[in-house]
Amino acid sequence: MESELLGWLRNRLPDHPQLRLGPGDDAALLRLVHGSEFLATCDLLTDQVDFDLSAVDPRRVGHKALAVNLSDIAAMAGRPTAAIIALALPRRGGKELAIQLYEGLLPLAERYQVAIAGGDINSWDGPLVISITLLGEPTARGPLCRAGAKPGDLIVVTGAFGGSILGHHLDFEPRIHEALLLHTRFEVHAGIDVSDGLAMDLGRLTDESRCGAVLRTDQAPIAEDAHRLSRQRNDALTPLDHALGDGEDFELILAVPPGEARRIISEQPLETPLTIVGEFIAEPGLWRDSGDGERRPLARHGYEHRLDS
Amino acid sequence: MESELLGWLRNRLPDHPQLRLGPGDDAALLRLVHGSEFLATCDLLTDQVDFDLSAVDPRRVGHKALAVNLSDIAAMAGRPTAAIIALALPRRGGKELAIQLYEGLLPLAERYQVAIAGGDINSWDGPLVISITLLGEPTARGPLCRAGAKPGDLIVVTGAFGGSILGHHLDFEPRIHEALLLHTRFEVHAGIDVSDGLAMDLGRLTDESRCGAVLRTDQAPIAEDAHRLSRQRNDALTPLDHALGDGEDFELILAVPPGEARRIISEQPLETPLTIVGEFIAEPGLWRDSGDGERRPLARHGYEHRLDS
Repeated sequence: MESELLGWLRNRLPDHPQLRLGPGDDAALLRLVHGSEFLATCDLLTDQVDFDLSAVDPRRVGHKALAVNLSDIAAMAGRPTAAIIALALPRRGGKELAIQLYEGLLPLAERYQVAIAGGDINSWDGPLVISITLLGEPTARGPLCRAGAKPGDLIVVTGAFGGSILGHHLDFEPRIHEALLLHTRFEVHAGIDVSDGLAMDLGRLTDESRCGAVLRTDQAPIAEDAHRLSRQRNDALTPLDHALGDGEDFELILAVPPGEARRIISEQPLETPLTIVGEFIAEPGLWRDSGDGERRPLARHGYEHRLDS
Repeated sequence: MESELLGWLRNRLPDHPQLRLGPGDDAALLRLVHGSEFLATCDLLTDQVDFDLSAVDPRRVGHKALAVNLSDIAAMAGRPTAAIIALALPRRGGKELAIQLYEGLLPLAERYQVAIAGGDINSWDGPLVISITLLGEPTARGPLCRAGAKPGDLIVVTGAFGGSILGHHLDFEPRIHEALLLHTRFEVHAGIDVSDGLAMDLGRLTDESRCGAVLRTDQAPIAEDAHRLSRQRNDALTPLDHALGDGEDFELILAVPPGEARRIISEQPLETPLTIVGEFIAEPGLWRDSGDGERRPLARHGYEHRLDS
């Protein structure tokens, strides 16, 4: 649904002199009249879709609501600046809920020096809605975009994938510092954060870069929670299936020239492991290679909000 | 509820070097690392609270959702720059609804040169929620704030008040051009837009300016719709009661030094009438004077989201 509407919007929106990057990246890039540029991104979370308020501490929801936005700024290798927070609170217990949400997000805001630049507080008869707009600034190197991956670039990822529903999707730490360090110290051509699944978001990056990619499934880092989830659930999904499709890992996928990628892997400059999981190719499309050199189509399965009508 | 929570937040939030004006004005004022300043404001609207989707064209809802934010930038005498739009759409008919919302807001965005800088589209089992964050830039004169009214300043308002529920609350034109012209050509000390009622928002301005005000109720411009509403409804509310308390007029209240206020009134530089409706005084509190020189307390009745718990 989002992708269809986004297509409609991208055709419908007129160019704007101050909008340097519009819909299609993890954050928009804007230029002020005086020349400064800044990034803007937004995520709206709703009860029963993005979290289950009957089962989790609202502080974890507050943390997640800010963290998903920080992850978008990380994907652009930007520095976060300010958050604007809009709440639609259930009438019963709304004030206490709002305070708990803020208690969950304020430590994260302080850790990344994010100013809370106001917002809007409402109560209504519906479930909790929390919508955060996060502003940031690109570094002197400029923003890291989804477009820019070149055939021959290697696919480098942070961390591990799959099974985030067991808790990581609420408690993850956004890759702000990691993105800034990599973008500053190495040549990185393109980047995206994984919100909807490794395969799905790799596909988005190749779409914007007008190229394809081969994912080495034997080298994809699989999270411990992907194994746990596979054991817990009585279905046919393997840990690898979870790693490719689950979403909400909020790790980074980067396009890095081969020599630079090898330097990153040997230096391992982050606390979290960095892994090469394949390469970008000129031919459009996503492929999987389990290590035998044979390419099979890689489905873009992953999490996407679906609309019935 | 909002004011209570805002009090909690204002105490809880640490200072931030880039946040020049935080919660308490119509928009926050932020400074980028490179020195540029910009304004940020946010309004979240929900079905059955801010509009009734079963009774109105969604295009009018889209218009209102952007217009209320433009009104906040007008209150700061800023130029709007970019909007970030978050939607929670009902699953049934959500795509068509989103397109109609955009059809309603895009003409307004184009009229005020607002870039649509992305956003977030979700569907869920709840009613429509639309949350817009609007960014803007102060002019060379700086932002117009709620603080700044001085005892002796006259209260100058644009337009007329009351009865907006009959249609104006959906179809109003934000006072962007009016605020820019007045702030550029005249000395204006403080300003606010009327979202929750003439008395309520006048009270907010005096709170931030640490002063009081006497409203000349015999001079308050009463909208034709306030008369219509008073006739339609079988209650004791007069047209003046509606003008003082209804809210969603989205007119401007300005604090202007006396000589300058008289110059504004004689020049009438806007298409919409400008009226002097009283004066600011040193003593805190709101007072009404019906023209006989006697001051009675003016209740801050008006629209505010209320919480049961």
